[in-house]
Amino acid sequence: MAVTLRSSAADFEQRFAAFLSTKREDSPEVDLVVRQIIADVRARGDAALKELTLKFDRADLNRIGIAVGPDDIAAAYRQADPETIDALKLARDRIFSHHQRQMPKDDRYTDAIGVELGSRWTAVESVGLYVPGGLASYPSSVLMNAVPAKVAGVGRIVMVVPPTGGEINPLVLVAADIAGVTEIYRVGGAQAVGALAYGTDTISPVVKIVGPGNAFVAVAKRQVFGKVGIDSIAGPSEVLVVADRDNDPQWLAADLLAQAEHGMGAQSILITDDEGLAADVEQAVAAQLKTLPRPQNAAESWRDFGAVIIVGSLDEAPALVDRIAAEHVELAVADPEAFLKKIRNAGAVFLGRHTPEVIGDYVGGSNHVLPTARSARFSSGLSVLDFVKRTSVLKLGPEQLRQLAPAAITLAKAEGLDAHGRSVSIRLNM
Amino acid sequence: MAVTLRSSAADFEQRFAAFLSTKREDSPEVDLVVRQIIADVRARGDAALKELTLKFDRADLNRIGIAVGPDDIAAAYRQADPETIDALKLARDRIFSHHQRQMPKDDRYTDAIGVELGSRWTAVESVGLYVPGGLASYPSSVLMNAVPAKVAGVGRIVMVVPPTGGEINPLVLVAADIAGVTEIYRVGGAQAVGALAYGTDTISPVVKIVGPGNAFVAVAKRQVFGKVGIDSIAGPSEVLVVADRDNDPQWLAADLLAQAEHGMGAQSILITDDEGLAADVEQAVAAQLKTLPRPQNAAESWRDFGAVIIVGSLDEAPALVDRIAAEHVELAVADPEAFLKKIRNAGAVFLGRHTPEVIGDYVGGSNHVLPTARSARFSSGLSVLDFVKRTSVLKLGPEQLRQLAPAAITLAKAEGLDAHGRSVSIRLNM
Repeated sequence: MAVTLRSSAADFEQRFAAFLSTKREDSPEVDLVVRQIIADVRARGDAALKELTLKFDRADLNRIGIAVGPDDIAAAYRQADPETIDALKLARDRIFSHHQRQMPKDDRYTDAIGVELGSRWTAVESVGLYVPGGLASYPSSVLMNAVPAKVAGVGRIVMVVPPTGGEINPLVLVAADIAGVTEIYRVGGAQAVGALAYGTDTISPVVKIVGPGNAFVAVAKRQVFGKVGIDSIAGPSEVLVVADRDNDPQWLAADLLAQAEHGMGAQSILITDDEGLAADVEQAVAAQLKTLPRPQNAAESWRDFGAVIIVGSLDEAPALVDRIAAEHVELAVADPEAFLKKIRNAGAVFLGRHTPEVIGDYVGGSNHVLPTARSARFSSGLSVLDFVKRTSVLKLGPEQLRQLAPAAITLAKAEGLDAHGRSVSIRLNM
Repeated sequence: MAVTLRSSAADFEQRFAAFLSTKREDSPEVDLVVRQIIADVRARGDAALKELTLKFDRADLNRIGIAVGPDDIAAAYRQADPETIDALKLARDRIFSHHQRQMPKDDRYTDAIGVELGSRWTAVESVGLYVPGGLASYPSSVLMNAVPAKVAGVGRIVMVVPPTGGEINPLVLVAADIAGVTEIYRVGGAQAVGALAYGTDTISPVVKIVGPGNAFVAVAKRQVFGKVGIDSIAGPSEVLVVADRDNDPQWLAADLLAQAEHGMGAQSILITDDEGLAADVEQAVAAQLKTLPRPQNAAESWRDFGAVIIVGSLDEAPALVDRIAAEHVELAVADPEAFLKKIRNAGAVFLGRHTPEVIGDYVGGSNHVLPTARSARFSSGLSVLDFVKRTSVLKLGPEQLRQLAPAAITLAKAEGLDAHGRSVSIRLNM
């Protein structure tokens, strides 16, 4: 049973603040182990990868190889259901189209005194994409990470995935092929991150590493950050549904459970101004849980982290939405566009009663890698911008230098940087 | 004396690779101390700030106050040289104009099947700006960090600066006022970062923390990351000058020394195809060092980290430039635009013989907070983008949902996420 908070209660602010600061994931102390694994990969390269993969994934890379080859891809296509392959291609096309619009444009202009300024965007040279093994080995996540890199123009897109018991989900290989991944290796965990950052005989190093992973992978990414770029560290998933009374409680319950079934700290929240709807949704959640083939994750997440927040009026909701700053926000209200204008902190917003968040997970076209754990207050979902970087450009002629020199020299002097001043004055015989 | 590398040497690749991996800064083990300081600030708030400031900065905040008030700002203006104030205003105006062009535009469109998609940008609500004390307390850095936040539309811009011996550089206060900083507090070190992240009675918490600092500040920022956003961690500064023979060696020497005088691991590199120019520049560096009032930093940086790379032809240079991926690249060559097209990894590029990097430090208009330590391979300089975040928007009607539902349900099923599938199918009576 999820917690219920009423904004009319005297202790609401206190309870809401406590709810916001609920910790939803463990941070096991794996720093030292990860450091040793990465050091081992740096020192022994492929040999370390083989040994660690035998130990952690029970797979013999001497037999099946580190690199996934064209034959493996072809075999994966044969194992995959044709309808699923088509769905992946539809998703790829929609993600590609949407992300093409995110490509930033170069800017170059001359200002009033003749100084030329500019911003120039270029793709990072290479990207490593981590894909988890086992149950969380999602082909949709392969698309969501690889397609924006492809759109950005990244030349090398290198995927690593642990061969759990020797096996890789064939749909992950198919998705990688469909997305344009250029190299695939059978390696996971901190050892994969170490290999991507520092390279081995088989795996050339990359410039940036993205993609979700377990605690070992997350810590490894933090440790190699600086040597390479990383994306943000993904936390447990969240959905916040804002609903007026004119909703089918079954629909809302289904949306809350879709998020909850991710388990591992996933959180589903309903905000409504209608006590009756709130009760109906809670009943519908309970009823639908009974019909799920694998209800355990969803039941535990709803019980431990689920919340129903009842407000006196939906006018109170935008402030709460911004404080929650959820990864996904569904606006199941009469005028979602008007509501959207009143909020600022959300990873992705799904407008209206016919836009379940799940569409965004797969085929909406927008990215499903989004800021979690309230980080939508300061960060954004994955986009083409994560695979490009900007170089600023400045160009002065003698006349512009003469005009700007006095101020530059004054400031250099004020900061006690004599050589800075001279670098300007020496060009002017000042 | 800087190191000299010749691309014609048999061991060049080996020496260049070693040069690239030279470590230029110490990473003292302050993790535990910082963790304790932050915990203390969380537990005791203002009382901890006062005690720690007395201890580390020898300043009594009970006497001078935590908050800087209007009287303090007015006094700072009186202490400042009018010419310097004017130079700061010119810099502010030029930075503001340039950064206005970086403001990303919202995008909203309807695709071929009627799905509405969009990206919406909003400012982060509040930003904390760390400004170091002592010698590295640069008013220009205040402008470079605060003005983009102002352009982005950040409401609260909160500056913290340690009151070393009770004093704050008046030009830092003037720059803060000119840049539009809204609150200023006399606190520095890890305790300032802790206060910005978690808040105290006097200092309300912020959503993101930016700005350079010493090892304690850098470690504190890493520790609070997640609770708040942070910018990238700045390393020692670098300049890479690419020069053909038609240069005045004195100008180039001045540019190399301007970077070197930052000390603390700063690096200056010259790439040229002309042995004679290389020798002349080295002589000019030695000569100019003798005339600097405070030569020590520059002399040490040039000796320890400086490099002159002599190539057979400037055609070899772009590949080396991209591997060095320097913070600042000066192109002192006949056709800098053509050269620019051949490189991709640089924080900022300064085109032609009349664009010394120092102009970019102060009054060029572009930002001087740039990626260091080869991170220009995967990251960008500070910009308006660091103070906004993107929310993706998706909107389907019943017809669009019907069209996309089969693929979404297929993928949900393939990923074993039953509740995901139901969230879509329940809306269609499927």
